[in-house]
Amino acid sequence: MSVVADTRPLDLLADFPAIPTGWAYLDTAATAQKPRPVLDAIARGYGETYATVHRGVYQRSADMTLAFEASRTRVATFIGGKPEEIIFVRGATEGINLVAQCWAGTQLKAGDRILLSTLEHHSNIVPWQMVAERVGAAIDVIPLTADHRIDLDAMAAMITPAHKLVALAHVSNVLGSVLDAKRATEIAHSVGAKILLDGCQAVPRLPVDVAGIGCDFYVFSGHKLYGPTGIGVLWGRYDLLDAMPPWQGGGSMIDRVTFERTTYAPPPGRFEAGTPHIVGVVGLHAAVDYVAGIGLERIYAHETALVRAARDALTQVNSVRLFGPDDSAGIVSFAVEGVHPHDVATILDEGNVAIRAGHHCAQPLMDALGVSATARASFGVYNGAADIAALVKGIERVTRIFG
Amino acid sequence: MSVVADTRPLDLLADFPAIPTGWAYLDTAATAQKPRPVLDAIARGYGETYATVHRGVYQRSADMTLAFEASRTRVATFIGGKPEEIIFVRGATEGINLVAQCWAGTQLKAGDRILLSTLEHHSNIVPWQMVAERVGAAIDVIPLTADHRIDLDAMAAMITPAHKLVALAHVSNVLGSVLDAKRATEIAHSVGAKILLDGCQAVPRLPVDVAGIGCDFYVFSGHKLYGPTGIGVLWGRYDLLDAMPPWQGGGSMIDRVTFERTTYAPPPGRFEAGTPHIVGVVGLHAAVDYVAGIGLERIYAHETALVRAARDALTQVNSVRLFGPDDSAGIVSFAVEGVHPHDVATILDEGNVAIRAGHHCAQPLMDALGVSATARASFGVYNGAADIAALVKGIERVTRIFG
Repeated sequence: MSVVADTRPLDLLADFPAIPTGWAYLDTAATAQKPRPVLDAIARGYGETYATVHRGVYQRSADMTLAFEASRTRVATFIGGKPEEIIFVRGATEGINLVAQCWAGTQLKAGDRILLSTLEHHSNIVPWQMVAERVGAAIDVIPLTADHRIDLDAMAAMITPAHKLVALAHVSNVLGSVLDAKRATEIAHSVGAKILLDGCQAVPRLPVDVAGIGCDFYVFSGHKLYGPTGIGVLWGRYDLLDAMPPWQGGGSMIDRVTFERTTYAPPPGRFEAGTPHIVGVVGLHAAVDYVAGIGLERIYAHETALVRAARDALTQVNSVRLFGPDDSAGIVSFAVEGVHPHDVATILDEGNVAIRAGHHCAQPLMDALGVSATARASFGVYNGAADIAALVKGIERVTRIFG
Repeated sequence: MSVVADTRPLDLLADFPAIPTGWAYLDTAATAQKPRPVLDAIARGYGETYATVHRGVYQRSADMTLAFEASRTRVATFIGGKPEEIIFVRGATEGINLVAQCWAGTQLKAGDRILLSTLEHHSNIVPWQMVAERVGAAIDVIPLTADHRIDLDAMAAMITPAHKLVALAHVSNVLGSVLDAKRATEIAHSVGAKILLDGCQAVPRLPVDVAGIGCDFYVFSGHKLYGPTGIGVLWGRYDLLDAMPPWQGGGSMIDRVTFERTTYAPPPGRFEAGTPHIVGVVGLHAAVDYVAGIGLERIYAHETALVRAARDALTQVNSVRLFGPDDSAGIVSFAVEGVHPHDVATILDEGNVAIRAGHHCAQPLMDALGVSATARASFGVYNGAADIAALVKGIERVTRIFG
C-alpha cells in the first residue's frame, strides 16, 4: 500500500459525543468509541424500525430483513468479498473458533501442522491449540524479526507440506506491526496450506481487500471498527464455507428438521443459528459507511503519523523503551524502566489519559519481549496532536514520581 | 404458580416509543419491542460510559466493568441462581449448543439417550442431534397430551437410566403451553438424568426460579425479554459448569497461555472468550429491572387473560382452528380453514396487525399437528384489548376475502 504521510488532523472529535473535552482516549485497539451515525443507527434499530428478521410476514420485519442483508452486502464490498461469504459472528474470536472447529476440525488429521506466529493474540492461539489437541495436529511458531514483525523469510524457510493452516494477525494488537498479507498468503499457498488472517486491528486502520490478498479466511470485530459490541465478521471463500459442516444448531441454519434427519441451509445461513444480533448488524453497516467515508488510506496516514510523533516524543524520555516497528499502524507499546505498566496507566489516568497496561491477551509475545506486560497507547480517527502531548506529559510525570 | 387473574390493562404502551398508535404488534414471541429504560441504557452504554471491560486500568473501563458484572448479579437474582453460574452468550441457541458440546459432548457415550419433546424449537433439537451423532447417542421424543402439553406421564413411563439428558421448553414458542418444570425435573432426576430448560418464552412471561425448579441448566435470550439483540444467558449449576471444558478459545477465558500449554479460567470466564457484548449485557440489566418492576406474576396474569380473550373471540369465527391449551402463556397459534397462514398474516398486516406465520422453527411440531405452518399471535406487556379487537377484525376480514 502506498500512501502519502498526512499529519493534518482529521477533526472528527465532534462526531464522538462520548469523548469529553480533554480526555485522551488512547485505547482504541481495545475498543473504539462510537460516532454519531453509529449511535443513531443503533437508536433507530432498537426504535422505530425494530423487528425480527428473515421470518416476519409484516412490513416492518420485511424492512428490517432488507436492512440486515444490506449490511452483509456492504461489509462484503468493504473488504472485497461476496455477500454469501460474510458470516455474522459475535466477534473475531468466534470467527476463529468457527474456522478452527468447522474447517480445521474436519480437515486436519494426526501429524498435520498449524503455523502461527509469536505475536498472536490468544484468540488466534487457543482455538488452534484446542483443535490440534483434538485431532492430533502440532503447532509451529514463526519468530519475529529484530524490529518485531512476523518474519516471513523464516516462515518461508520453515513451512512444509505438513502445514495445512496458517493463522496470522494482519496487524499486531500489541505492536502495530503490519503483515505483508499478500506475501504471507503466497508462502502459505506454496505448500497448499490455507491461511486465516486476524484483521481486528487491520480493518479499522488500513484498506483491506481479501480478493487482492488472496487469503482463505478473514475475521474482524465490529466494536473495534467504531461499531456495536457483540458483532463481528468471518469472511471465507465460498467453496471452503460450502464444504464445512454447521457451527451451532438451531433456527435459520436448517433446511428441514425431523427427529430422524436434519438437513442444513447453504452458507451463510448454515453458520448463523438463532435470532442474530439484528441491531449489531445494522449498526455495523453505519460503522463501515463511517470509516469508508473518511477513507481508510487517510485513516492509515493519520494514525501512522500519530505513531511516529508519539514514538519520536517518547524516545526523548530516557527511561522509555519502545516496542514494535517505527511504521506501526496506530499502536505503540512501551515500558518505563523500573515502573510497572499498571502504575504507568494509573498515573496517566489521573491526568485524563486512558491507555491499556497488561499482557494484551498475548502472553507468548510478552515472553518473547522478556516482559510480563507493556503499556500500550493506541490511536483512532478522533485522536490528534493534543493526545500525544497529554501522553508525553503523563509519561514525564511518571518518570518524576518514580525517578 | 398461583396467580389472581388480572385483566386490568398494564397501560405501559407509553414506555414503548417504537410502537406507533394503532399498530397491533403481536409478534413478541419472536422478539419484544424495547421500553425506554432499555433504550436509554443502550444509548448510555454506547455513549458517555462506553469502554471495554475487565482489562482497562482507567476509570471509565473500571466503571464499565462494575456495570457489566452488576448485570450478571442482577440476572442471577432474577432467576434464582448465583452470579458465577451466569454465562453471557449470544442467545438461547448458543446456550443450548454450549451445553450440548461442552457437557453432553464430554459426558455422553455410545448407547446413551437424550430425551426431548415433540414441541421443541429447532434450537432445542438440532444441537442434540449434532452431539448425538458425534458420540453415538440416541434421541427419544416425549409426545404431547391431547391439549398440546408435553405429556409428563408419558415422560415418566418412557425415561430410563440410559437417558442422561432431558431438554424441554419451559413454555412452547408455538402453543404457549407451560411445562410443570418442577415435575419434569423430578422425573429426569429420578433416573439420574440432567435437565436443561429452554426458558426463552418463560422468562418474559412468568416468574422463574431455577433453585425452586431444581433444574441443571436454563437458557434464555435477551431480545425476547425486552432487552438488546445478540445477548442471552446460560445458567448452569456451578459444579456442572466447573467440570466442563471451555467453549471457545480466546481472550478472558484463559489462566495462562504458552505455545506448550494453556490453562483455563474458572466459570463463568472459561465460557466467555473474547470481548463480550458489553452494551448488550448492560442493556439486559435494564430489561430485567423493567420486567421485575412490573412483576412477573402481573405480566403472567395479564398475558394469560389476553390469551383467553383472544381464544374466546377467535372461537366465534367458524373457520378458525385453535392450537394449544386454553391457559397458554401469552401465545395463540391458529389456522383459518382453507387459507395459508402466510396469507392470513399478509392480510392482517394490511390492517396494521403484525403476527407471525410459518413453522416457527418447530417443524416436528407442525408434523404432529398435521399442518405445514400456523398463524401465531403472541402478546407482550404493551398489548391490550384493542390489539385483540384488531386481530379479530383482521381475521374476520380474512374469512370474508377467502370465504
